[in-house]
Amino acid sequence: MSSRFHVAGIGNAIVDVIATCEDDFISKHALNKGAMTLIEAERAEELYALMPPGIEMSGGSCANTIAGIASLGGQSAYIGKVCEDQLGAVFAHDVRALGVHFDTAPIKGQPPTARCLILVTPDAERTMNTYLGACVELTPDDVDEEIIAAAQVTYMEGYLWDRPEAKEAYLKAAATAHDAGRRVSLTLSDTFCVERHRESFRDLVRGHVDILFANEDEIMALYEVDSFEAAVEAVRGDCEMVALTRSEKGAVILAGTQHYEIPARTFGRVVDTTGAGDLFAAGFLAGLTQGRHLAECGKMGVIAAGEIISHVGARPERPLARLMEEEL
Amino acid sequence: MSSRFHVAGIGNAIVDVIATCEDDFISKHALNKGAMTLIEAERAEELYALMPPGIEMSGGSCANTIAGIASLGGQSAYIGKVCEDQLGAVFAHDVRALGVHFDTAPIKGQPPTARCLILVTPDAERTMNTYLGACVELTPDDVDEEIIAAAQVTYMEGYLWDRPEAKEAYLKAAATAHDAGRRVSLTLSDTFCVERHRESFRDLVRGHVDILFANEDEIMALYEVDSFEAAVEAVRGDCEMVALTRSEKGAVILAGTQHYEIPARTFGRVVDTTGAGDLFAAGFLAGLTQGRHLAECGKMGVIAAGEIISHVGARPERPLARLMEEEL
Repeated sequence: MSSRFHVAGIGNAIVDVIATCEDDFISKHALNKGAMTLIEAERAEELYALMPPGIEMSGGSCANTIAGIASLGGQSAYIGKVCEDQLGAVFAHDVRALGVHFDTAPIKGQPPTARCLILVTPDAERTMNTYLGACVELTPDDVDEEIIAAAQVTYMEGYLWDRPEAKEAYLKAAATAHDAGRRVSLTLSDTFCVERHRESFRDLVRGHVDILFANEDEIMALYEVDSFEAAVEAVRGDCEMVALTRSEKGAVILAGTQHYEIPARTFGRVVDTTGAGDLFAAGFLAGLTQGRHLAECGKMGVIAAGEIISHVGARPERPLARLMEEEL
Repeated sequence: MSSRFHVAGIGNAIVDVIATCEDDFISKHALNKGAMTLIEAERAEELYALMPPGIEMSGGSCANTIAGIASLGGQSAYIGKVCEDQLGAVFAHDVRALGVHFDTAPIKGQPPTARCLILVTPDAERTMNTYLGACVELTPDDVDEEIIAAAQVTYMEGYLWDRPEAKEAYLKAAATAHDAGRRVSLTLSDTFCVERHRESFRDLVRGHVDILFANEDEIMALYEVDSFEAAVEAVRGDCEMVALTRSEKGAVILAGTQHYEIPARTFGRVVDTTGAGDLFAAGFLAGLTQGRHLAECGKMGVIAAGEIISHVGARPERPLARLMEEEL
């Protein structure tokens, strides 16, 4: 079967509001440093009022990955829910301007398009506070089966698990992809997200996921083990392919008996780590769907992640395809 | 009389949408490179659809200056019109988060908050396309006389001259300021803006303006002369104080018989020249209202401008007060 898309993604469609702050802002307002915390509308208003001036740009974990794949020259599609408001228009513009297929029907009225209030501290760590807004309206009906069946890989974010309807959308997409002989991929998203959904995630990883993305902390949380090595041992066999990121220690790729260690890449100073995992997944999946060797897929992952942490924001600042030509 | 504010500003309240592009995008879509072009709603939609992915951040020439003054530790107030929509909320948040007094009543419904579509080319030049939206609703009623009377300097942008009601608002503010024994300041904004309003601007400069800001091209356009020296000769005597910016050649400050030449400052690579003039005015006016020597005011101007052109966007990325401590 021909593949119209290299990758189709399903995720929470979010606009990021990014500001830099000192560490005392994080402690004073009791934020969970380095994590993604879900917040309600009222808290979002309150926190926004306290935040320094910011910039707005499209975000959303899976959407960042899809944007990265497009920037790498891949054909991709995205499914996610925005509202028919100004931030929804910004989100839709930014993903479509990259040539990504995006036609999930926006909701009218309320709730508004989701936003993630991101505070970046001088250590380049990001602390995220997400108001899901319109994302709560994503249902299985939004999963366009034709798109899923036409994509080599369907990629989804663990954050979707925070809502029952989105979870159903996920399972529908996974079943559709597998019926079409396609692969299903998942990122565990965040340690707290793993804590919230550990048993579900373990079942998912064993039963539905072909390609798993996680960072060191997330994979250890999934298997409740104290060392990275123990987590590697545990995940081996649960999935066809596993890509584990370890910040400055780079990445580890596992597939059957294959095992590759890929050193990290940086381009100048590390400014903002938002989107590092998302862009690693973009590089890896772009390589995989271009039929490249696994070690090279891993290398593409660390290069894309390296670009994203060299500036503020989780969308590439320069065409990643060109960067790969220079760096690979 | 005590001054609650160092500077009060009146301007078009705009959110910038900034994207980088190659030069061929500018020529292909017949944009006026380096200038500010007014566009209607339909053209704004059309151009936005063509633009690469962007970032959104608060802008507006005078608002950038006011934000800069706040970042320099000055007490400032801003008068400008947004709509009660998401981009209006972003604009209001960003200026208030700096401690700026901003309480111009937003409009409800239509038109939406103004936006400026900015294309930054590899030479760091910016090409601006402004849809004025809610700005067209600014009237003399929005000029809060108490604020104007309580500010040492009232600063306004020449762009206001593009609309009759905004022009009336300007004249009301100027009269109020002078009645209260305050100073009135104007920036000529843009060469095309000067071409549109040359006679009015000349009358204004002679009759109402105490402190004039312009760049080399703008001041030459105002007096229809072919050399910077001829423009300097012409403007001398028309205004109490004149601050002229000359890009990499720095700035020239004139006041009575005083004449200072200030070399330009840069901080690393020049990335995006958006806001250079706005931030020069911020540094200069902050210095002036702190009672500093004119040459030092000019130096503060070039330092603030140097910071703004070192990154994307027209709002400071770091506290300018701290930068001045290091650089002065």
